[in-house]
Amino acid sequence: MADLFHEIDQCVTAPKGFRTGTTSCGIKSDAGIKDLAILVSDVPCTVAGVFTTHNLRAAPVLLCQERLKGGKAQAIVVNSGNANCATGQQGLDNAYQMTSFTASKLGIAEDLVFCSSTGIIGRQLPMEKIEAGIQQIELSTTDGNAFAEAIMTTDTHPKRMALEFEIEGKTVRLGGVTKGSGMIRPNMATMLSYITTDAAVEQAWLQQVLKEAVDDSYNMISVDGDMSTNDTCMVFANGLVDNTPLNAQHPDAPTFVQALRQITFKLAREMARDGEGATKIQTINVRGARNKADAVKAARSLTYSPLWQCALAGGDPNWGRIAAAAGSSGCEFDQNAFDIFVGETQITRQGIAIDYDQDQAHAAMAGDEVIITIDLHLGDGEATAWGCDLTHGYIDENSLYTR
Amino acid sequence: MADLFHEIDQCVTAPKGFRTGTTSCGIKSDAGIKDLAILVSDVPCTVAGVFTTHNLRAAPVLLCQERLKGGKAQAIVVNSGNANCATGQQGLDNAYQMTSFTASKLGIAEDLVFCSSTGIIGRQLPMEKIEAGIQQIELSTTDGNAFAEAIMTTDTHPKRMALEFEIEGKTVRLGGVTKGSGMIRPNMATMLSYITTDAAVEQAWLQQVLKEAVDDSYNMISVDGDMSTNDTCMVFANGLVDNTPLNAQHPDAPTFVQALRQITFKLAREMARDGEGATKIQTINVRGARNKADAVKAARSLTYSPLWQCALAGGDPNWGRIAAAAGSSGCEFDQNAFDIFVGETQITRQGIAIDYDQDQAHAAMAGDEVIITIDLHLGDGEATAWGCDLTHGYIDENSLYTR
Repeated sequence: MADLFHEIDQCVTAPKGFRTGTTSCGIKSDAGIKDLAILVSDVPCTVAGVFTTHNLRAAPVLLCQERLKGGKAQAIVVNSGNANCATGQQGLDNAYQMTSFTASKLGIAEDLVFCSSTGIIGRQLPMEKIEAGIQQIELSTTDGNAFAEAIMTTDTHPKRMALEFEIEGKTVRLGGVTKGSGMIRPNMATMLSYITTDAAVEQAWLQQVLKEAVDDSYNMISVDGDMSTNDTCMVFANGLVDNTPLNAQHPDAPTFVQALRQITFKLAREMARDGEGATKIQTINVRGARNKADAVKAARSLTYSPLWQCALAGGDPNWGRIAAAAGSSGCEFDQNAFDIFVGETQITRQGIAIDYDQDQAHAAMAGDEVIITIDLHLGDGEATAWGCDLTHGYIDENSLYTR
Repeated sequence: MADLFHEIDQCVTAPKGFRTGTTSCGIKSDAGIKDLAILVSDVPCTVAGVFTTHNLRAAPVLLCQERLKGGKAQAIVVNSGNANCATGQQGLDNAYQMTSFTASKLGIAEDLVFCSSTGIIGRQLPMEKIEAGIQQIELSTTDGNAFAEAIMTTDTHPKRMALEFEIEGKTVRLGGVTKGSGMIRPNMATMLSYITTDAAVEQAWLQQVLKEAVDDSYNMISVDGDMSTNDTCMVFANGLVDNTPLNAQHPDAPTFVQALRQITFKLAREMARDGEGATKIQTINVRGARNKADAVKAARSLTYSPLWQCALAGGDPNWGRIAAAAGSSGCEFDQNAFDIFVGETQITRQGIAIDYDQDQAHAAMAGDEVIITIDLHLGDGEATAWGCDLTHGYIDENSLYTR
């Protein structure tokens, strides 16, 4: 793998033909904080996207889902500080207006411009500020890292990655950026993720491999079990490398998929680690489930059990809470069969505690990365989820957010 | 209602023919703390019960469910400090042994003795201590309040209530006690509740009205969304009042049901108020749902949304989080229809914020009791749920529990 993929800088502007620009237009009350950003390709891209399944979907999500039907995109405009959610028809009009301003500035077709918003729910966007902000944005081919910063909300650091590899012997790049640190849970939450590539890719296959990558990465993390209204993950493939468009039959398809998944897994783990108030990341491996869907339920359950997340914060190998969370997750569960491991230490066998090394178990909980393994002994379903602990910091960040 | 029901003291020993006894047998490490209790009737009772739906059910729950098939009970023995859960065949043997010790002491049939355990999961009960404890318990007809105390775990105060009313012109009493303050959520959690009455009641009807009362009370509260392995709610009716056994056709049936529900509602609210670390109780009224099941989903969702619970702790009327929780609850939800009220203040109309009085909304969040109303405008389904806020105190109580 070290030979196949080289990690490079500048995330979404690493692939050929992509430019980004950012500005501070005053949506966020702290002056000077970046809150508006544009990503644009020199040529129209094949685009794929997956979105929140929330019943309360933000206006920009509705716009993206509508325009995705065309399968093409050339730019996306993103603001932070305001989610443009629960804003009714005016909110939807504003989302379209944002893309119209952006299309005019860039001189491209309006229906090739997508948009995202993240921040507080229930307030109308300040359209004059956004219009002025879009005008003042300057675009650059070497500033993807600033784009990663501009879309942050409560994130403590930008989350980005780019890889270089070969398709048909030609150099291809794939770059990704993600924001999100709270309200994150399976099926995505206030998460925005944009991935760019200069490879040519067939739309239907791009949509399929993106969906699969997201299901195994972004959809397997949780900070607090709350689901967001604005989740968006899109891939823009502009084809400037001029390869034969990738599809399932292309001999280099596995290479592209591997690169895509390497990026989504890395960025998903980064989000879990950067969970609001988090001091520890947990990786939960479930095996022996009746099937994959059951393994997913069991693994995810630990990522949004406040009781277990508190034990994790305290470094307490309280396996009863692990069993209680998994057992109530809706997966098939035989209370006389399951094994639990904290790090390398086996704690239960056939559902009851064995005489394990207490010091070793506490040591496995002490670091900033904790690995829990559950074997349900019911089949061959496997899944891995990532999450974090629940701390005073989470509460402090979330008790006084709108003021 | 003031004329129909008189509130009286001593909860479960208020009805005729019930005795309780408690002791400190050393299950809990703090010497002198009550951790074992017996409730017994002078004569066999008609019994009804509802239990956790968790896939990991504690041994005493399995025992109760088995013995409930007989429809009769005369006593229950309860320990705190150890949940006897995830303890395998030995745990089940120990549960039966506990009832055997109790039957011997009381001189009654073993299959009329039920048992409950609450506390840490995954450790075997110290049976010598329990055997000795059962022997040393002294029973009294006037000590129901001590029973309420002995079954507490992290509760800050005992939860109990007794009512006196008339059936066929005869004085009847109904007394209840409940413990629980964490790991509580819809479908019950580490909640133990015992209700006694000296009325005669038909078993099938008692089971039905208990189930309905629990669904609308205990099953509508949550502290943290975690489900427990040991939930138990039982009613013991010893018939000493010698009325015609109550059933659906009995003219005084509504009176009994009203008394039963008054007790379960009061004790459910007490549990929500006593949630671990809680500083506020929230009451969530949902109306206009497509049906009752949808109303229940929407109302409950606010009781286990950490983001909303943090806003509640901070007194922040962040209605976006209310909409986000309800919208992802799985209920039918029209994002252009819902109204949200914080206290008396309407915040949204048809899904978007109106120009509401901010001071009034903040004032409605400032007290220790907050009322949220959501009208989904989709039908006539209604439900009410109760919960609490999420605070540093919750985390402190749950980060170092097993040490």
